[in-house]
Amino acid sequence: MNLDSGWITGFVDGEGCFYVGINPHEEMSAGYQVLPEFTVVQHERDVQILHALKASFGCGVVRKNHGDRMAYRVRSLEHLLERIVPFFEKHPLKSKKRQDFIKFRRIVRMMEAGDHLTEDGVEEIRRIAGQMNRGSSR
Amino acid sequence: MNLDSGWITGFVDGEGCFYVGINPHEEMSAGYQVLPEFTVVQHERDVQILHALKASFGCGVVRKNHGDRMAYRVRSLEHLLERIVPFFEKHPLKSKKRQDFIKFRRIVRMMEAGDHLTEDGVEEIRRIAGQMNRGSSR
Repeated sequence: MNLDSGWITGFVDGEGCFYVGINPHEEMSAGYQVLPEFTVVQHERDVQILHALKASFGCGVVRKNHGDRMAYRVRSLEHLLERIVPFFEKHPLKSKKRQDFIKFRRIVRMMEAGDHLTEDGVEEIRRIAGQMNRGSSR
Repeated sequence: MNLDSGWITGFVDGEGCFYVGINPHEEMSAGYQVLPEFTVVQHERDVQILHALKASFGCGVVRKNHGDRMAYRVRSLEHLLERIVPFFEKHPLKSKKRQDFIKFRRIVRMMEAGDHLTEDGVEEIRRIAGQMNRGSSR
Protein backbone atom coordinates (compact mmCIF):
# COMPACT_ATOMS: atom_id res chain seq x y z
CA MET A 1 0.00 0.00 0.00
CA ASN A 2 1.49 3.31 -1.09
CA LEU A 3 0.57 6.34 1.01
CA ASP A 4 0.86 9.81 -0.45
CA SER A 5 1.98 12.65 1.79
CA GLY A 6 -1.42 14.36 1.75
CA TRP A 7 -3.14 11.18 2.91
CA ILE A 8 -0.56 10.65 5.68
CA THR A 9 -1.03 14.20 6.97
CA GLY A 10 -4.81 13.88 6.93
CA PHE A 11 -4.71 10.53 8.69
CA VAL A 12 -2.29 11.77 11.35
CA ASP A 13 -4.44 14.90 11.84
CA GLY A 14 -7.18 12.47 12.81
CA GLU A 15 -5.38 9.56 14.43
CA GLY A 16 -1.81 10.56 15.30
CA CYS A 17 -0.37 11.59 18.65
CA PHE A 18 2.77 13.48 19.63
CA TYR A 19 3.53 12.66 23.23
CA VAL A 20 6.39 13.33 25.64
CA GLY A 21 6.67 11.15 28.75
CA ILE A 22 8.80 12.32 31.70
CA ASN A 23 9.61 9.58 34.21
CA PRO A 24 11.82 9.45 37.29
CA HIS A 25 15.04 7.60 36.46
CA GLU A 26 17.90 7.22 38.92
CA GLU A 27 20.57 6.71 36.31
CA MET A 28 19.86 9.93 34.40
CA SER A 29 21.92 12.96 35.43
CA ALA A 30 18.85 15.17 35.92
CA GLY A 31 16.95 12.38 37.73
CA TYR A 32 14.40 12.01 34.93
CA GLN A 33 14.14 10.26 31.61
CA VAL A 34 12.41 12.19 28.82
CA LEU A 35 10.63 9.91 26.32
CA PRO A 36 9.18 11.56 23.24
CA GLU A 37 7.10 9.40 20.93
CA PHE A 38 5.02 9.68 17.82
CA THR A 39 2.18 7.13 17.69
CA VAL A 40 -0.75 6.14 15.53
CA VAL A 41 -3.18 3.64 17.05
CA GLN A 42 -5.67 1.61 15.01
CA HIS A 43 -8.01 -1.31 15.40
CA GLU A 44 -6.14 -4.49 14.42
CA ARG A 45 -8.31 -4.85 11.32
CA ASP A 46 -6.37 -1.90 9.87
CA VAL A 47 -2.88 -3.02 10.90
CA GLN A 48 -1.81 -2.91 7.24
CA ILE A 49 -2.13 0.89 7.41
CA LEU A 50 0.30 0.99 10.33
CA HIS A 51 2.79 -1.14 8.39
CA ALA A 52 2.37 1.20 5.40
CA LEU A 53 3.11 4.20 7.66
CA LYS A 54 6.22 2.42 8.96
CA ALA A 55 7.35 1.78 5.38
CA SER A 56 6.64 5.39 4.36
CA PHE A 57 8.57 6.92 7.25
CA GLY A 58 11.26 4.24 7.07
CA CYS A 59 11.42 3.91 10.87
CA GLY A 60 9.45 2.89 13.94
CA VAL A 61 7.72 -0.33 14.99
CA VAL A 62 4.22 -1.82 14.83
CA ARG A 63 3.21 -3.45 18.10
CA LYS A 64 0.15 -4.60 20.00
CA ASN A 65 -1.37 -1.76 22.02
CA HIS A 66 -4.36 -2.48 24.30
CA GLY A 67 -6.96 -5.15 23.57
CA ASP A 68 -7.70 -5.29 19.85
CA ARG A 69 -5.68 -2.14 19.08
CA MET A 70 -2.33 -1.97 17.33
CA ALA A 71 0.13 0.94 17.43
CA TYR A 72 2.74 2.35 15.08
CA ARG A 73 5.34 4.00 17.29
CA VAL A 74 8.55 5.99 16.74
CA ARG A 75 10.67 6.59 19.85
CA SER A 76 14.20 6.92 18.45
CA LEU A 77 15.35 10.52 18.90
CA GLU A 78 17.37 10.25 15.71
CA HIS A 79 14.35 9.04 13.69
CA LEU A 80 12.07 11.66 15.25
CA LEU A 81 14.58 14.41 14.33
CA GLU A 82 15.50 13.15 10.89
CA ARG A 83 12.26 11.63 9.61
CA ILE A 84 9.12 12.50 11.56
CA VAL A 85 9.76 16.20 12.28
CA PRO A 86 10.94 17.05 8.72
CA PHE A 87 7.91 15.27 7.23
CA PHE A 88 5.42 17.38 9.19
CA GLU A 89 7.39 20.53 8.51
CA LYS A 90 7.10 19.85 4.79
CA HIS A 91 3.45 18.69 5.03
CA PRO A 92 1.88 20.75 7.84
CA LEU A 93 -0.94 19.34 9.91
CA LYS A 94 -4.20 21.26 9.51
CA SER A 95 -5.83 20.52 12.86
CA LYS A 96 -4.92 21.96 16.26
CA LYS A 97 -2.66 18.92 16.57
CA ARG A 98 -0.15 21.08 14.72
CA GLN A 99 0.37 23.01 17.95
CA ASP A 100 1.28 19.77 19.71
CA PHE A 101 3.67 18.99 16.90
CA ILE A 102 5.40 22.36 17.29
CA LYS A 103 5.87 21.80 21.04
CA PHE A 104 7.02 18.24 20.35
CA ARG A 105 9.57 19.52 17.82
CA ARG A 106 10.85 22.03 20.33
CA ILE A 107 11.38 19.30 22.92
CA VAL A 108 13.17 16.84 20.62
CA ARG A 109 15.46 19.68 19.50
CA MET A 110 16.18 20.53 23.14
CA MET A 111 17.06 16.86 23.63
CA GLU A 112 19.32 16.99 20.57
CA ALA A 113 21.15 19.81 22.37
CA GLY A 114 21.33 17.74 25.58
CA ASP A 115 19.00 20.00 27.59
CA HIS A 116 17.17 16.97 29.04
CA LEU A 117 20.35 16.06 30.93
CA THR A 118 20.11 19.14 33.16
CA GLU A 119 17.57 19.88 35.89
CA ASP A 120 16.67 23.25 34.33
CA GLY A 121 16.24 21.59 30.96
CA VAL A 122 13.93 18.91 32.35
CA GLU A 123 11.88 21.61 34.10
CA GLU A 124 11.47 23.51 30.82
CA ILE A 125 10.57 20.31 28.94
CA ARG A 126 8.02 19.48 31.64
CA ARG A 127 6.48 22.94 31.26
CA ILE A 128 6.17 22.58 27.47
CA ALA A 129 4.93 18.98 27.64
CA GLY A 130 2.27 20.06 30.13
CA GLN A 131 0.71 22.23 27.42
CA MET A 132 0.38 19.35 24.95
CA ASN A 133 -2.60 17.15 24.06
CA ARG A 134 -4.95 19.27 26.15
CA GLY A 135 -7.79 19.27 23.66
CA SER A 136 -7.65 15.55 23.13
CA SER A 137 -10.81 13.65 23.81
CA ARG A 138 -9.17 10.23 23.65
CA MET B 1 -8.13 26.49 4.58
CA ASN B 2 -7.65 24.52 1.37
CA LEU B 3 -7.84 20.76 1.67
CA ASP B 4 -6.25 18.56 -0.97
CA SER B 5 -7.96 15.32 -1.92
CA GLY B 6 -5.24 13.13 -0.37
CA TRP B 7 -5.59 14.91 2.96
CA ILE B 8 -9.40 14.60 2.88
CA THR B 9 -9.21 10.86 2.18
CA GLY B 10 -6.68 10.33 4.97
CA PHE B 11 -8.70 12.37 7.44
CA VAL B 12 -11.94 10.57 6.56
CA ASP B 13 -10.14 7.20 6.82
CA GLY B 14 -9.50 8.20 10.42
CA GLU B 15 -12.50 10.29 11.40
CA GLY B 16 -15.31 9.81 8.90
CA CYS B 17 -18.42 7.64 9.17
CA PHE B 18 -20.81 6.25 6.58
CA TYR B 19 -24.05 5.39 8.34
CA VAL B 20 -27.52 4.29 7.30
CA GLY B 21 -30.36 4.71 9.78
CA ILE B 22 -33.61 2.77 9.29
CA ASN B 23 -36.52 4.06 11.35
CA PRO B 24 -40.22 3.17 11.51
CA HIS B 25 -42.22 5.88 9.69
CA GLU B 26 -45.99 5.63 9.17
CA GLU B 27 -46.09 7.92 6.17
CA MET B 28 -43.54 5.94 4.11
CA SER B 29 -45.00 3.33 1.75
CA ALA B 30 -42.78 0.54 3.13
CA GLY B 31 -43.36 1.63 6.74
CA TYR B 32 -39.76 2.72 7.22
CA GLN B 33 -37.63 5.75 6.49
CA VAL B 34 -34.08 5.06 5.30
CA LEU B 35 -31.62 7.80 6.31
CA PRO B 36 -28.09 7.56 4.90
CA GLU B 37 -25.57 10.06 6.18
CA PHE B 38 -21.91 10.85 5.86
CA THR B 39 -20.45 12.46 8.99
CA VAL B 40 -17.17 13.69 10.38
CA VAL B 41 -17.13 14.55 14.09
CA GLN B 42 -14.45 16.72 15.72
CA HIS B 43 -13.78 18.51 18.97
CA GLU B 44 -15.06 22.08 18.64
CA ARG B 45 -11.49 23.40 18.69
CA ASP B 46 -11.15 21.99 15.15
CA VAL B 47 -14.48 23.22 13.81
CA GLN B 48 -12.61 25.10 11.06
CA ILE B 49 -11.68 21.73 9.56
CA LEU B 50 -15.36 20.78 9.35
CA HIS B 51 -16.15 24.06 7.59
CA ALA B 52 -13.26 23.40 5.20
CA LEU B 53 -14.69 19.94 4.44
CA LYS B 54 -18.10 21.52 3.80
CA ALA B 55 -16.50 24.02 1.42
CA SER B 56 -14.50 21.29 -0.35
CA PHE B 57 -17.51 19.03 -0.91
CA GLY B 58 -19.82 21.98 -1.61
CA CYS B 59 -22.63 20.47 0.43
CA GLY B 60 -23.68 19.45 3.95
CA VAL B 61 -23.96 21.30 7.24
CA VAL B 62 -21.79 21.88 10.33
CA ARG B 63 -23.76 21.48 13.55
CA LYS B 64 -23.26 20.89 17.24
CA ASN B 65 -23.03 17.18 18.02
CA HIS B 66 -22.75 16.05 21.68
CA GLY B 67 -21.04 18.09 24.39
CA ASP B 68 -17.98 19.84 22.99
CA ARG B 69 -18.13 17.96 19.68
CA MET B 70 -19.14 19.37 16.32
CA ALA B 71 -20.23 17.40 13.26
CA TYR B 72 -20.05 17.87 9.51
CA ARG B 73 -23.00 16.01 8.06
CA VAL B 74 -24.35 15.27 4.57
CA ARG B 75 -27.84 13.74 4.44
CA SER B 76 -29.18 14.89 1.06
CA LEU B 77 -29.47 11.85 -1.22
CA GLU B 78 -28.66 14.07 -4.19
CA HIS B 79 -25.49 15.39 -2.57
CA LEU B 80 -24.45 11.93 -1.41
CA LEU B 81 -24.90 10.58 -4.95
CA GLU B 82 -23.39 13.51 -6.82
CA ARG B 83 -20.62 14.70 -4.51
CA ILE B 84 -19.67 12.33 -1.68
CA VAL B 85 -19.81 8.99 -3.52
CA PRO B 86 -17.93 10.22 -6.63
CA PHE B 87 -15.21 11.79 -4.46
CA PHE B 88 -14.43 8.51 -2.66
CA GLU B 89 -14.61 6.59 -5.93
CA LYS B 90 -11.94 8.89 -7.36
CA HIS B 91 -9.89 8.97 -4.12
CA PRO B 92 -10.34 5.53 -2.53
CA LEU B 93 -10.19 5.12 1.24
CA LYS B 94 -7.28 2.96 2.37
CA SER B 95 -8.68 1.63 5.65
CA LYS B 96 -11.36 -1.02 6.11
CA LYS B 97 -13.79 1.92 6.16
CA ARG B 98 -13.73 1.51 2.40
CA GLN B 99 -15.91 -1.59 2.82
CA ASP B 100 -18.48 0.53 4.67
CA PHE B 101 -18.30 3.08 1.86
CA ILE B 102 -19.00 0.40 -0.76
CA LYS B 103 -22.07 -0.81 1.16
CA PHE B 104 -23.16 2.80 1.69
CA ARG B 105 -22.84 3.48 -2.04
CA ARG B 106 -24.91 0.41 -2.81
CA ILE B 107 -27.68 1.62 -0.49
CA VAL B 108 -27.82 5.20 -1.80
CA ARG B 109 -27.97 3.81 -5.34
CA MET B 110 -30.82 1.52 -4.34
CA MET B 111 -32.56 4.60 -2.94
CA GLU B 112 -31.93 6.45 -6.19
CA ALA B 113 -33.81 3.59 -7.90
CA GLY B 114 -36.63 3.85 -5.33
CA ASP B 115 -35.98 0.46 -3.71
CA HIS B 116 -36.41 1.93 -0.22
CA LEU B 117 -40.09 2.48 -1.01
CA THR B 118 -40.83 -1.25 -1.15
CA GLU B 119 -40.82 -3.72 1.72
CA ASP B 120 -38.39 -6.04 -0.08
CA GLY B 121 -36.09 -3.12 -0.77
CA VAL B 122 -36.09 -2.01 2.88
CA GLU B 123 -35.33 -5.60 3.94
CA GLU B 124 -32.36 -5.74 1.57
CA ILE B 125 -31.12 -2.32 2.75
CA ARG B 126 -31.47 -3.45 6.36
CA ARG B 127 -29.39 -6.56 5.59
CA ILE B 128 -26.61 -4.50 3.97
CA ALA B 129 -26.66 -1.79 6.66
CA GLY B 130 -26.38 -4.50 9.33
CA GLN B 131 -22.94 -5.38 7.95
CA MET B 132 -21.64 -1.80 8.24
CA ASN B 133 -19.46 -0.15 10.95
CA ARG B 134 -18.87 -3.48 12.68
CA GLY B 135 -15.21 -2.87 13.37
CA SER B 136 -15.82 0.59 14.77
CA SER B 137 -14.54 1.19 18.25
CA ARG B 138 -16.36 4.50 18.68
